[in-house]
This record gives sequence, structure tokens and C-alpha cells, in this order.
Amino acid sequence: MKQYQVVGIGNAIVDILAHASDDFLAEAGIEKGIMQLIDMDRAVDLYSKIGPAREISGGSAANTIAGIAQLGGRTAYVGKVKDDQLGAIFAHDLRAQGADYETKMAPKDDAQETGRSIILVTPDGERSMNTYLGVTEHLQPSDIIDTQMQNAEWIYLEGYRFDGPESHEAFAKAISACKGAGGKVSLTLSDPFCVERHRDAFRTMIQDSVDLLFCNRAELMSMYQMDSFDDALAQAASEIDILACTDSENGAYILSQGQRWHAPAMPIQIEDATGAGDLFAGAFLWGITNGYDLETSGRMGCISAAEVITHIGARSEADLKELFRKQGISLTQ
Amino acid sequence: MKQYQVVGIGNAIVDILAHASDDFLAEAGIEKGIMQLIDMDRAVDLYSKIGPAREISGGSAANTIAGIAQLGGRTAYVGKVKDDQLGAIFAHDLRAQGADYETKMAPKDDAQETGRSIILVTPDGERSMNTYLGVTEHLQPSDIIDTQMQNAEWIYLEGYRFDGPESHEAFAKAISACKGAGGKVSLTLSDPFCVERHRDAFRTMIQDSVDLLFCNRAELMSMYQMDSFDDALAQAASEIDILACTDSENGAYILSQGQRWHAPAMPIQIEDATGAGDLFAGAFLWGITNGYDLETSGRMGCISAAEVITHIGARSEADLKELFRKQGISLTQ
Repeated sequence: MKQYQVVGIGNAIVDILAHASDDFLAEAGIEKGIMQLIDMDRAVDLYSKIGPAREISGGSAANTIAGIAQLGGRTAYVGKVKDDQLGAIFAHDLRAQGADYETKMAPKDDAQETGRSIILVTPDGERSMNTYLGVTEHLQPSDIIDTQMQNAEWIYLEGYRFDGPESHEAFAKAISACKGAGGKVSLTLSDPFCVERHRDAFRTMIQDSVDLLFCNRAELMSMYQMDSFDDALAQAASEIDILACTDSENGAYILSQGQRWHAPAMPIQIEDATGAGDLFAGAFLWGITNGYDLETSGRMGCISAAEVITHIGARSEADLKELFRKQGISLTQ
Repeated sequence: MKQYQVVGIGNAIVDILAHASDDFLAEAGIEKGIMQLIDMDRAVDLYSKIGPAREISGGSAANTIAGIAQLGGRTAYVGKVKDDQLGAIFAHDLRAQGADYETKMAPKDDAQETGRSIILVTPDGERSMNTYLGVTEHLQPSDIIDTQMQNAEWIYLEGYRFDGPESHEAFAKAISACKGAGGKVSLTLSDPFCVERHRDAFRTMIQDSVDLLFCNRAELMSMYQMDSFDDALAQAASEIDILACTDSENGAYILSQGQRWHAPAMPIQIEDATGAGDLFAGAFLWGITNGYDLETSGRMGCISAAEVITHIGARSEADLKELFRKQGISLTQ
């Protein structure tokens, strides 16, 4: 048995969550529903204009790893924060959930700070993310510990972290170490605009190294630039072993080895859509690494995603296993 | 019309909120349901042991002032943070709510940090606060701006800030400036153990300067050390113009000039009791400074307190005025 079921690599971010109106987004020039990168000046200016907020550790892959840890999975995270108060918060929340987190912090005198995302939640529950990456942008090959990757059944790569050349090399190093030791590679496409920025690099990685691809409908359509969703699903499935594609209120589609399953979405009232895809991936990875079949793992993903969007914040405090049982899933772990 | 309806003075604190079991409190040596002061070493050690948390601006008087601002009141806050990330969060959240906040920050090289309270919420909704005061302990007379106190209809003093000799002088300066310009003084006793520490100083201030006293049953009983709650109410009411004493699920008692009113508590499910007394005081002060009678102001207090304890965090995001209307209060503002 390997030490870790999943090791995730991504942007280490603290979320700053506030409610905002659609009018505010328009006035502030914020594109609704996506992640946009901002610099420190913009972060300071935007922060001064938003309403009262609350701070909760986030980061897409970190949310996924926190979900796996919450389910009792053996998991670790790699991502860079600074030795500042937000960095301490990020590190604490991940470790307190039971995940290993050993990435070296950027020193106190680094000109950049710990990354943060100003997430504005509109009355419809949609979230618009304004992310200042800070030191997390500088994740580099030396931050990847080979033994950690070798000890992982799966590594989980966050597409967002493609925004930086050193991180491409870090990903390559992680993939090499993981695969060399018989591990497998999963990737999330993160965001349709992220796909826009890195389509070719993603495609190469998918074809060469990825065993399991996570995406949502918009990301898949941006990736394959086809007219039909079904055609894009089929194309992606032909390039990888497992495809897990979420589709909002339509649930998720799992394709593998010529088979296709559908996991239905849960009927819920969305309070804050932040983290839905992250928790889907976390529960799905926990499922498959504990021997559940792909369809059941997909259902676990949908149940977990539904839980996290019924409240503010991208990390769940609910007993996810209890929710699985309530939906009739018989648990062996 | 004075510039401010209420200017509050207190401990500037960021809350670190996490769930915990009663067993955890026992093991960690935390006394349940009260505020206990801790030093930085204890704060670091305790933080390393608690589960994932979320950070929300707090501070008792700051919560009160945020409530008044949320209701549209003209209000300002005085309390000390450091020029660090938590300090920036505290300042932002207060200003973003519409309160003025101009207290000079402690510089980056101060050995202490911005104050924080590790608040552990047990399954019964009770909160146990572990407060590292940091720089907020050093609020001193030079932090009190005379013109701000002169421009206040009411000042609101947080009993917790009696934990520091410089702050006694700061309070004296604020009272003198406020009263000299025809303003009035309100005080909250904050916590029964705080009363234990400062009973004589509180009593002197009540008899000499306080026009409106906020407390809960336990604080009142600790203050007057009488066998009967009714006797303690009567004694306090004989020493001041207005007494507003909350009593958990029994609501609140308002006594003034020989009269006594009762405001009922709302029937609710408590999620996190943090901030109940703070929001009661905020809504009550907003009520009386907008010309509502004492009984109606007490009802506004109870409605607001009920709202804030149905969710995690001591500041409300609800439309409090709408809640007042739903309870049949006819609003003129």
C-alpha cells in the first residue's frame, strides 16, 4: 500500500468571500462566473470596495485534498504560501483536516504575499473569482519532493498552476516521479479561460501522461473546440483512461474504456458555487482509490459537490460519508 | 444633529472560528462558555490543535458598531490593530460595513500582532473564547480623539478593554470629552469573569458616569453579588438611567426611571452564540438614537441577537430592518 492515495499540486490560496450584486460586478469590471488573475494593486483596490468578508482557506486542488482528508483518505498537498498570517492560516487548515503539507514557505522578506482570491458571490449563488497569486506563482521543481510523488497512488494536478513556466517543469518532475513508481496522473482543467491560455500544453499532457481527466462542460468544450458536447466527451475519452466531466444541474458523466455512466446531481438550493468541482474530484478520487466503481465514485462526487455549494466556503464541514449512506451507497470504508 | 449616533471603544479582534467537542475543551483545559485571555505561545499551541477554521472580524464593541452601521446608523469605532494582514482584514470589514475607523495602527515592527480570538463552538452552539489581545491591549489616551467623542450622541465602552491600565485612562478621556459636549455614556460588562476582575472600577464608573448599562444575567449577578436576580436588576436600575439586561432564552429586561419592560427572545435554533449580546446592544442603541421607545429598542435588540446566533460568526449579513418589520415593528427610518 502506498503512503498516499492522492497527492495534489496547485495554487495555495486563501479565499476572501463576500456577497456582491451583479451591478457591483459590472461597475468593477469583473467578469461573472470565472477566475480572473489580478495583481496586488488591483487586489488592494478591489478589496477596498467590497463589503465585509470572511476568510476561509481555499485553492482548487487544496480544496480537493481537504475533501479527501475529511473522508479519511491518506493525502498530501504541494503548493506555496509565504511565512505570513494568511500563509499560516492556509497551512493550519490543511493540516488540521489531516492532510500532509510540507511545501517550504516563501520567507518573510519576499516581496509578494500569500495568494488570495477575492470571491464575490452574487444572489444567484454564482461566484466570480479575482485571484492574486502572490508567492504561489513561484512553485518550482525544487518544491517537488520525488519520494512524495513516488509514494502516491495518484497525483492530482491543478490546471490553474499552468500559469507559470517554472510550474510546468514542476508538474513534469512530479509526473515523472509518480509514473516511474507506478502511480497515476489526474488533471483538472480548472476553468475555460485557463484552457484557453494553455490548450496546447494541456492537450499534450492529456495525451502523454494523464490517466484521469476532470473537467466541466465549458472546460471540455473549450479544450476540444467541437460543436457537440457528446463529440467532445467521446474525443476526450478516446485520449485517456477515465474522463469525469461535471455538468452543473445535470450531474456528471464518467467515461472509460468505451463505457459511459451518468451520476445525477442532487436537488439543492445553491448558496455559493465555490468548490463544487473541487469536492467532486476529491470524493471521486477517494472513491476510486478505495475500490469503489466509477459510477459509485461519480455519485460520491455529486453528493459532495452538492453539500459544499449549500453554504459559503469551498470546504465542507459535513459528514460526507453519512451523506453517501443516506443516498443508499453502501460503504466499505 | 451630532456626527455620530454611537462611537464604540473596545478590543479589535479577528475571530478564528472552529467547531470542537466538549472532550476537546476538557483536554485542552478550556473553560466552556467564557472568554479567557491567552498569550501568544498558548495561541500558537492551541491553534495547532484545533480543526479547520474560518476567520471573521470580531471584537465585542466592533460587532456592536458593525451592527449599527449595517442598520444605517452613523457610527465609528476605536480599537487598535497592527499593520499586518489580520489588521487589514479587521479594518476593511468595519469600514466596508459603513463605520468610520481611524485608530492608528501599531507599526509593522511591533513585537505583538493583531489580536485574535480562537472561538471554539461546541455542538450545543455555546462558544468558548481564547483571546490573544496582542497590540489591542495597548489602547491608550492618545488613541482617543477628543473631537470624535464630542461629536457622539453616545459612546459605547467595552468592559473587556478594562484589562489594561492605559485603557482606563483612555476611557476616562473619552467619557470626559463626550459628557463635556452633552453626550451620554453606555457600558457593557462583557463577561462575568471580566466583572470579577474589575468589579470596583466598573461600579465606580457606573455610579459616576454611565447612563446606559448593558449586561446579561450572569454579569449582573457577578456585579452586584446579590441572591436574587430581581434585586440585582433593581439595584443596578437605581444607579443608572437605563439598564438593558439580557437573559438568554428569556429575552431581555429594560429598566428605567422606575419602569420595567420585557422583550421576549425569538424562538430559534442556536448555531453559534457568538455576538448575541453585541448585536443586542447595537440594535438597542440604533433604536434609542432613532427615537424608538425603550421597549421597542429592546425588541429590536432581541431580534438582532437571534439572527446572529443562527449562523457562524458574530456579524450579521441579514436585512435586520426587514426582520424588525416582520415582527410587526413599524419603522420610521
